[in-house]
Amino acid sequence: MTEANPFRPVDDTARGLARDLIEGATYGALATLQPGKTMPSVSRIALATDEAGGLVTLISTLADHTRALHANPACALLIGEPGEAGDPLTHPRLTLHAEARFVARDSAEHGHLRARYLALRPKAKLYVDFTDFGFVCFEISEALLNGGFGKAWRLASADLAPDQRTT
Amino acid sequence: MTEANPFRPVDDTARGLARDLIEGATYGALATLQPGKTMPSVSRIALATDEAGGLVTLISTLADHTRALHANPACALLIGEPGEAGDPLTHPRLTLHAEARFVARDSAEHGHLRARYLALRPKAKLYVDFTDFGFVCFEISEALLNGGFGKAWRLASADLAPDQRTT
Repeated sequence: MTEANPFRPVDDTARGLARDLIEGATYGALATLQPGKTMPSVSRIALATDEAGGLVTLISTLADHTRALHANPACALLIGEPGEAGDPLTHPRLTLHAEARFVARDSAEHGHLRARYLALRPKAKLYVDFTDFGFVCFEISEALLNGGFGKAWRLASADLAPDQRTT
Repeated sequence: MTEANPFRPVDDTARGLARDLIEGATYGALATLQPGKTMPSVSRIALATDEAGGLVTLISTLADHTRALHANPACALLIGEPGEAGDPLTHPRLTLHAEARFVARDSAEHGHLRARYLALRPKAKLYVDFTDFGFVCFEISEALLNGGFGKAWRLASADLAPDQRTT
Protein backbone atom coordinates (compact mmCIF):
# COMPACT_ATOMS: atom_id res chain seq x y z
CA MET A 1 0.00 0.00 0.00
CA THR A 2 1.35 3.42 -0.91
CA GLU A 3 0.55 6.18 1.54
CA ALA A 4 0.58 9.83 0.65
CA ASN A 5 2.15 12.22 3.14
CA PRO A 6 -0.65 14.66 3.87
CA PHE A 7 1.58 17.16 5.70
CA ARG A 8 3.00 20.38 4.24
CA PRO A 9 6.44 21.78 5.15
CA VAL A 10 6.23 23.96 8.26
CA ASP A 11 6.39 27.68 7.45
CA ASP A 12 5.64 30.98 9.19
CA THR A 13 2.02 30.83 8.04
CA ALA A 14 1.58 27.58 9.94
CA ARG A 15 3.48 28.89 12.98
CA GLY A 16 1.41 32.07 13.07
CA LEU A 17 -1.88 30.20 12.73
CA ALA A 18 -0.91 27.78 15.50
CA ARG A 19 0.12 30.66 17.76
CA ASP A 20 -3.18 32.47 17.10
CA LEU A 21 -5.13 29.33 18.03
CA ILE A 22 -3.17 29.01 21.30
CA GLU A 23 -3.59 32.69 22.20
CA GLY A 24 -7.31 32.55 21.43
CA ALA A 25 -8.15 29.32 23.24
CA THR A 26 -10.61 29.80 26.10
CA TYR A 27 -11.40 26.09 26.24
CA GLY A 28 -10.54 22.85 24.53
CA ALA A 29 -11.00 19.09 24.43
CA LEU A 30 -8.61 17.22 26.74
CA ALA A 31 -7.84 13.60 25.86
CA THR A 32 -6.53 11.39 28.66
CA LEU A 33 -5.89 7.71 29.19
CA GLN A 34 -8.45 6.03 31.44
CA PRO A 35 -6.54 4.81 34.52
CA GLY A 36 -5.66 1.13 34.28
CA LYS A 37 -7.10 0.78 30.78
CA THR A 38 -5.93 1.09 27.18
CA MET A 39 -8.88 3.38 26.47
CA PRO A 40 -8.87 7.14 26.10
CA SER A 41 -11.43 9.58 27.39
CA VAL A 42 -12.08 13.17 26.36
CA SER A 43 -13.63 16.11 28.18
CA ARG A 44 -13.93 19.88 27.99
CA ILE A 45 -11.61 22.06 30.04
CA ALA A 46 -11.08 25.80 30.36
CA LEU A 47 -7.77 27.12 29.02
CA ALA A 48 -5.65 30.24 29.23
CA THR A 49 -2.05 31.11 28.44
CA ASP A 50 0.65 31.44 31.08
CA GLU A 51 3.30 34.18 31.04
CA ALA A 52 5.55 32.17 28.71
CA GLY A 53 2.74 31.68 26.20
CA GLY A 54 2.04 28.06 27.15
CA LEU A 55 -1.37 26.63 27.98
CA VAL A 56 -2.72 26.16 31.50
CA THR A 57 -6.00 24.90 32.90
CA LEU A 58 -7.74 25.08 36.28
CA ILE A 59 -9.36 21.75 37.16
CA SER A 60 -10.90 19.91 40.10
CA THR A 61 -9.60 16.73 41.69
CA LEU A 62 -13.23 15.52 41.61
CA ALA A 63 -13.12 15.29 37.82
CA ASP A 64 -12.28 12.03 36.03
CA HIS A 65 -9.74 13.79 33.81
CA THR A 66 -7.75 15.01 36.83
CA ARG A 67 -7.47 11.47 38.22
CA ALA A 68 -6.47 10.27 34.76
CA LEU A 69 -3.71 12.90 34.49
CA HIS A 70 -2.40 11.95 37.94
CA ALA A 71 -2.19 8.31 36.80
CA ASN A 72 -0.68 9.17 33.40
CA PRO A 73 0.26 12.77 32.54
CA ALA A 74 0.51 12.01 28.79
CA CYS A 75 -2.42 13.79 27.19
CA ALA A 76 -3.62 15.69 24.14
CA LEU A 77 -5.55 18.92 23.58
CA LEU A 78 -7.74 20.00 20.68
CA ILE A 79 -8.26 23.74 20.34
CA GLY A 80 -9.76 26.01 17.68
CA GLU A 81 -13.53 25.86 17.87
CA PRO A 82 -15.76 26.86 14.96
CA GLY A 83 -18.52 29.33 15.66
CA GLU A 84 -22.14 28.35 15.13
CA ALA A 85 -22.07 29.45 11.50
CA GLY A 86 -18.69 27.94 10.66
CA ASP A 87 -18.05 24.71 8.79
CA PRO A 88 -16.40 22.49 11.44
CA LEU A 89 -14.18 20.74 8.89
CA THR A 90 -12.74 23.87 7.30
CA HIS A 91 -12.22 25.79 10.57
CA PRO A 92 -8.56 25.68 11.68
CA ARG A 93 -7.81 23.50 14.69
CA LEU A 94 -4.72 22.36 16.52
CA THR A 95 -3.97 19.04 18.22
CA LEU A 96 -1.33 19.29 20.93
CA HIS A 97 0.46 16.27 22.40
CA ALA A 98 1.59 17.11 25.90
CA GLU A 99 2.51 16.10 29.42
CA ALA A 100 0.41 17.56 32.22
CA ARG A 101 2.34 19.14 35.08
CA PHE A 102 0.43 19.80 38.32
CA VAL A 103 1.28 23.05 40.11
CA ALA A 104 1.40 22.83 43.92
CA ARG A 105 -1.17 25.13 45.55
CA ASP A 106 1.34 26.44 48.10
CA SER A 107 3.94 27.36 45.46
CA ALA A 108 4.93 30.80 44.19
CA GLU A 109 4.06 29.57 40.68
CA HIS A 110 0.47 28.98 41.85
CA GLY A 111 0.27 32.58 43.02
CA HIS A 112 1.51 33.93 39.69
CA LEU A 113 -0.80 31.70 37.69
CA ARG A 114 -3.78 32.55 39.93
CA ALA A 115 -3.30 36.30 39.40
CA ARG A 116 -2.89 35.98 35.64
CA TYR A 117 -5.72 33.48 35.24
CA LEU A 118 -8.19 35.65 37.17
CA ALA A 119 -7.21 38.65 35.06
CA LEU A 120 -7.91 36.65 31.89
CA ARG A 121 -10.90 34.62 33.19
CA PRO A 122 -12.63 36.69 35.89
CA LYS A 123 -15.49 34.20 36.33
CA ALA A 124 -13.00 31.70 37.74
CA LYS A 125 -12.87 33.68 41.00
CA LEU A 126 -15.99 31.72 42.00
CA TYR A 127 -14.00 28.49 42.36
CA VAL A 128 -10.25 29.19 42.02
CA ASP A 129 -9.79 28.95 45.80
CA PHE A 130 -11.84 25.79 46.32
CA THR A 131 -9.47 23.26 47.88
CA ASP A 132 -10.13 20.70 45.14
CA PHE A 133 -9.08 23.09 42.32
CA GLY A 134 -5.56 23.53 41.02
CA PHE A 135 -3.58 24.61 37.99
CA VAL A 136 -2.12 22.21 35.46
CA CYS A 137 0.42 23.33 32.84
CA PHE A 138 0.73 21.51 29.53
CA GLU A 139 4.29 20.78 28.38
CA ILE A 140 3.77 20.42 24.64
CA SER A 141 5.94 17.98 22.66
CA GLU A 142 4.40 18.26 19.18
CA ALA A 143 1.39 19.64 17.38
CA LEU A 144 -0.76 18.83 14.38
CA LEU A 145 -2.33 21.82 12.70
CA ASN A 146 -5.28 21.34 10.41
CA GLY A 147 -6.12 24.47 8.46
CA GLY A 148 -8.99 22.87 6.58
CA PHE A 149 -9.38 20.16 3.96
CA GLY A 150 -5.95 19.16 2.63
CA LYS A 151 -4.02 21.75 4.68
CA ALA A 152 -2.15 19.97 7.46
CA TRP A 153 1.16 20.60 9.18
CA ARG A 154 3.09 18.69 11.85
CA LEU A 155 4.84 21.18 14.15
CA ALA A 156 7.51 20.83 16.79
CA SER A 157 7.25 22.45 20.22
CA ALA A 158 9.66 25.23 19.14
CA ASP A 159 7.32 26.20 16.28
CA LEU A 160 4.70 27.16 18.88
CA ALA A 161 6.80 29.67 20.83
CA PRO A 162 5.48 33.24 20.90
CA ASP A 163 8.68 34.68 19.36
CA GLN A 164 8.12 32.64 16.19
CA ARG A 165 5.59 35.26 15.13
CA THR A 166 8.26 37.87 14.49
CA THR A 167 10.70 35.71 12.50
CA MET B 1 -9.00 10.78 51.59
CA THR B 2 -12.74 11.19 51.24
CA GLU B 3 -14.02 11.74 47.74
CA ALA B 4 -17.41 13.17 46.97
CA ASN B 5 -19.41 11.48 44.23
CA PRO B 6 -20.11 14.29 41.78
CA PHE B 7 -22.68 12.31 39.77
CA ARG B 8 -26.46 12.67 40.03
CA PRO B 9 -28.87 9.72 39.64
CA VAL B 10 -29.77 9.20 35.97
CA ASP B 11 -33.26 10.48 35.13
CA ASP B 12 -35.27 11.33 32.00
CA THR B 13 -33.91 14.88 32.03
CA ALA B 14 -30.39 13.51 31.67
CA ARG B 15 -31.47 10.96 29.05
CA GLY B 16 -33.28 13.62 27.01
CA LEU B 17 -30.36 16.04 27.18
CA ALA B 18 -27.91 13.32 26.10
CA ARG B 19 -30.18 12.33 23.22
CA ASP B 20 -30.50 15.94 22.08
CA LEU B 21 -26.71 16.31 22.07
CA ILE B 22 -26.34 13.15 19.95
CA GLU B 23 -29.06 14.19 17.48
CA GLY B 24 -27.56 17.67 17.15
CA ALA B 25 -23.92 16.67 16.73
CA THR B 26 -22.46 17.68 13.36
CA TYR B 27 -18.91 17.24 14.62
CA GLY B 28 -16.98 16.30 17.73
CA ALA B 29 -13.58 15.67 19.27
CA LEU B 30 -12.35 12.10 18.77
CA ALA B 31 -9.82 10.76 21.28
CA THR B 32 -7.72 7.80 20.20
CA LEU B 33 -4.67 5.97 21.49
CA GLN B 34 -1.50 6.72 19.53
CA PRO B 35 -0.39 3.40 17.95
CA GLY B 36 2.30 1.69 20.00
CA LYS B 37 2.22 4.32 22.75
CA THR B 38 0.42 4.95 26.03
CA MET B 39 -0.45 8.44 24.82
CA PRO B 40 -3.78 9.67 23.54
CA SER B 41 -4.42 12.02 20.66
CA VAL B 42 -7.52 14.04 19.84
CA SER B 43 -8.83 15.46 16.57
CA ARG B 44 -11.98 16.89 15.05
CA ILE B 45 -14.28 14.65 13.01
CA ALA B 46 -17.62 15.14 11.29
CA LEU B 47 -20.55 13.24 12.82
CA ALA B 48 -24.08 12.23 11.92
CA THR B 49 -26.60 9.74 13.26
CA ASP B 50 -27.28 6.40 11.61
CA GLU B 51 -30.78 4.92 11.22
CA ALA B 52 -30.70 3.41 14.72
CA GLY B 53 -29.78 6.75 16.29
CA GLY B 54 -26.12 5.91 16.81
CA LEU B 55 -23.20 8.06 15.74
CA VAL B 56 -21.21 7.58 12.54
CA THR B 57 -18.32 9.42 10.92
CA LEU B 58 -16.76 9.52 7.46
CA ILE B 59 -12.96 9.57 7.66
CA SER B 60 -9.88 9.13 5.49
CA THR B 61 -7.27 6.41 5.85
CA LEU B 62 -4.70 9.19 5.42
CA ALA B 63 -5.62 10.66 8.81
CA ASP B 64 -3.69 9.76 11.95
CA HIS B 65 -6.93 9.04 13.84
CA THR B 66 -7.97 6.42 11.28
CA ARG B 67 -4.67 4.54 11.68
CA ALA B 68 -5.05 4.82 15.45
CA LEU B 69 -8.56 3.32 15.36
CA HIS B 70 -7.33 0.46 13.17
CA ALA B 71 -4.63 -0.30 15.74
CA ASN B 72 -6.97 0.11 18.74
CA PRO B 73 -10.70 0.71 18.20
CA ALA B 74 -11.22 1.89 21.81
CA CYS B 75 -11.95 5.59 21.60
CA ALA B 76 -13.93 8.47 23.06
CA LEU B 77 -16.02 11.30 21.62
CA LEU B 78 -16.83 14.72 23.02
CA ILE B 79 -19.92 16.40 21.57
CA GLY B 80 -21.96 19.47 22.47
CA GLU B 81 -20.17 22.58 21.31
CA PRO B 82 -20.90 26.02 22.72
CA GLY B 83 -21.63 28.79 20.27
CA GLU B 84 -19.42 31.85 20.11
CA ALA B 85 -21.42 33.64 22.79
CA GLY B 86 -21.81 30.66 25.12
CA ASP B 87 -19.85 30.00 28.28
CA PRO B 88 -17.90 26.82 27.43
CA LEU B 89 -18.06 25.51 31.01
CA THR B 90 -21.82 25.85 31.43
CA HIS B 91 -22.74 24.57 27.96
CA PRO B 92 -23.90 20.91 28.10
CA ARG B 93 -21.50 18.36 26.67
CA LEU B 94 -21.33 14.60 26.44
CA THR B 95 -18.34 12.28 26.63
CA LEU B 96 -18.92 8.92 24.95
CA HIS B 97 -16.67 5.88 25.48
CA ALA B 98 -16.90 3.67 22.44
CA GLU B 99 -15.43 1.09 20.09
CA ALA B 100 -14.97 2.11 16.48
CA ARG B 101 -16.34 -0.32 13.89
CA PHE B 102 -15.17 0.13 10.27
CA VAL B 103 -17.82 -0.41 7.60
CA ALA B 104 -16.60 -2.21 4.46
CA ARG B 105 -17.00 -0.05 1.34
CA ASP B 106 -18.48 -2.91 -0.68
CA SER B 107 -21.16 -3.75 1.92
CA ALA B 108 -24.90 -3.05 1.84
CA GLU B 109 -24.44 -1.15 5.11
CA HIS B 110 -22.05 1.25 3.36
CA GLY B 111 -24.72 1.97 0.75
CA HIS B 112 -27.37 2.70 3.40
CA LEU B 113 -25.01 4.90 5.40
CA ARG B 114 -23.84 6.72 2.27
CA ALA B 115 -27.40 7.63 1.26
CA ARG B 116 -28.37 8.79 4.75
CA TYR B 117 -25.12 10.67 5.36
CA LEU B 118 -25.37 12.59 2.07
CA ALA B 119 -28.98 13.52 2.87
CA LEU B 120 -27.85 14.90 6.25
CA ARG B 121 -24.46 16.33 5.16
CA PRO B 122 -24.73 17.25 1.46
CA LYS B 123 -21.24 18.80 1.32
CA ALA B 124 -19.76 15.33 1.90
CA LYS B 125 -20.60 14.41 -1.72
CA LEU B 126 -17.29 16.09 -2.62
CA TYR B 127 -15.29 13.28 -0.99
CA VAL B 128 -17.57 10.43 0.07
CA ASP B 129 -16.52 8.34 -2.95
CA PHE B 130 -12.77 8.98 -2.63
CA THR B 131 -11.19 5.53 -2.21
CA ASP B 132 -9.49 6.52 1.06
CA PHE B 133 -12.77 7.52 2.75
CA GLY B 134 -15.02 5.18 4.68
CA PHE B 135 -17.67 5.09 7.39
CA VAL B 136 -16.95 4.23 11.00
CA CYS B 137 -19.75 3.49 13.48
CA PHE B 138 -19.25 4.13 17.19
CA GLU B 139 -20.49 1.36 19.51
CA ILE B 140 -21.02 3.29 22.73
CA SER B 141 -20.41 1.57 26.07
CA GLU B 142 -20.99 4.46 28.50
CA ALA B 143 -21.40 8.20 28.61
CA LEU B 144 -20.62 11.10 30.92
CA LEU B 145 -22.99 14.02 30.64
CA ASN B 146 -21.97 17.40 32.00
CA GLY B 147 -24.85 19.84 32.07
CA GLY B 148 -22.78 22.66 33.57
CA PHE B 149 -21.04 23.33 36.85
CA GLY B 150 -22.01 20.63 39.39
CA LYS B 151 -24.48 18.87 37.08
CA ALA B 152 -22.97 15.56 36.00
CA TRP B 153 -24.42 12.18 35.18
CA ARG B 154 -22.87 8.83 34.24
CA LEU B 155 -25.12 7.07 31.72
CA ALA B 156 -25.22 3.55 30.35
CA SER B 157 -25.51 2.79 26.65
CA ALA B 158 -29.24 1.98 27.07
CA ASP B 159 -29.86 5.48 28.46
CA LEU B 160 -28.83 6.90 25.07
CA ALA B 161 -31.32 4.98 22.92
CA PRO B 162 -33.79 7.12 20.95
CA ASP B 163 -36.84 5.45 22.55
CA GLN B 164 -35.78 6.70 25.97
CA ARG B 165 -37.19 10.07 25.02
CA THR B 166 -40.76 8.86 25.19
CA THR B 167 -40.61 7.01 28.52
